[in-house]
Amino acid sequence: MSGRVALVGAGPGDPALLTRKAVALLRRADLVLYDALVPPAMLKIARRARRFYVGKRAGRHSMTQDAINRLMVRAARRGDRVVRLKCGDPFVFGRGGEEAMALRAANIPVEIVPGVTSAFAAPALAGIPVTHRGAATAVVLVSGHAAEAYEPLLNGLEPGSATVVVLMGLGRRAAVADHLIQRGWPAETPAAIVFGAAHPDGQTWHGLLGELGRASVADFSAPGTIVIGSVVALAPFIGSEVEPVLERRRTAGRG
Amino acid sequence: MSGRVALVGAGPGDPALLTRKAVALLRRADLVLYDALVPPAMLKIARRARRFYVGKRAGRHSMTQDAINRLMVRAARRGDRVVRLKCGDPFVFGRGGEEAMALRAANIPVEIVPGVTSAFAAPALAGIPVTHRGAATAVVLVSGHAAEAYEPLLNGLEPGSATVVVLMGLGRRAAVADHLIQRGWPAETPAAIVFGAAHPDGQTWHGLLGELGRASVADFSAPGTIVIGSVVALAPFIGSEVEPVLERRRTAGRG
Repeated sequence: MSGRVALVGAGPGDPALLTRKAVALLRRADLVLYDALVPPAMLKIARRARRFYVGKRAGRHSMTQDAINRLMVRAARRGDRVVRLKCGDPFVFGRGGEEAMALRAANIPVEIVPGVTSAFAAPALAGIPVTHRGAATAVVLVSGHAAEAYEPLLNGLEPGSATVVVLMGLGRRAAVADHLIQRGWPAETPAAIVFGAAHPDGQTWHGLLGELGRASVADFSAPGTIVIGSVVALAPFIGSEVEPVLERRRTAGRG
Repeated sequence: MSGRVALVGAGPGDPALLTRKAVALLRRADLVLYDALVPPAMLKIARRARRFYVGKRAGRHSMTQDAINRLMVRAARRGDRVVRLKCGDPFVFGRGGEEAMALRAANIPVEIVPGVTSAFAAPALAGIPVTHRGAATAVVLVSGHAAEAYEPLLNGLEPGSATVVVLMGLGRRAAVADHLIQRGWPAETPAAIVFGAAHPDGQTWHGLLGELGRASVADFSAPGTIVIGSVVALAPFIGSEVEPVLERRRTAGRG
């Protein structure tokens, strides 16, 4: 039996949102390499596998990408069925492409198993449809980890022409909001930050684009998905399972 | 037992890419309303349910959105567990928001179950990561069904600033390509059309933005997902399970 690697999307965090294929691969796996935010309940599915955490620790990568690649190649060569489990979808800000290329260059068979992306599932679970007839016929998805990642796209973006979803952007939420407002987006554009969408204690901050920088996020350890656009205002008419629990505080924090 | 409705994403077409929650809801369902492209193998999971096709027939809606909404409300009121099964994700060009609003307005409990979106899964299964370090840190997703759906967004889009994914855009692929080229996108930008990505006979056309309008799609009944951007050129180094079978024909069709 020759080894192989599956690059598997874990979805937004709820084990019920794993795909059937992800579950089948985890059950058969000999080795699972997983990132931050993969919950223990998901790892338990891989009952016969050794499991290694290869995500960040205290903000730093616990292992370089090269070291992860080498580990997968070595395990597959000795016959292991490896599952590389990544939050959301492996090809949406997940470095799945880099890992697939390294594996293929080493002649290791690779299977790509898309997952439910948090970029769309987090808003959905908070009652926000990223597209909606009459409100948005386009979606823009950017990484907010650095200005050079989102500025080229946001620079030319016509105000209101798309729902904007920002992943990994909590730290730069003020800069993203300012950038859009300077380019003509109304400060009154509805905005939300969805925290831990797929968890029972998921919470959503609701406000306006002009308030995004002042949104208090100190209470949350979960990463937040930022959503900007008129579709955000639909949440009260759609959301049910996960209710927005943090209402916009129009007066607080302005004094 | 009071009735309820689950708006469920079916993913890109492979029953193995259904979520566990989707499967559990289908198994318990009394009534399933499904759209075009939902394969029979998926419907069989709903073994005890009545199943109604409510998608398009010969290009026309077989039922208006209002009629679908009324049908769901009526069934839930008489106690049915209804699954509204939609290709991909219900909130990504799926009218899920409209249906959720209609149901909530009628006081019907609604559960939203995100699915694997074809917008990202179709490229992934063809070996194209929509983001990739050094190639794309942003993705733009538009509907190509009408010029007014994609033009506002594409108008300001800085050339090369994002991977562009167009759903429902086969008919207007030439117009989309011309629009981008007129706005400074190089005609040499790699482009692909992924057909039936999650099916065993999935096929991918590979070419350049300037050739997109001339890509022959007559042989395909499956809908195509258009992907534009430098990430498309990574497919030969990533794709393995679904190989591109239609290579770019540089010389054909030019005479």
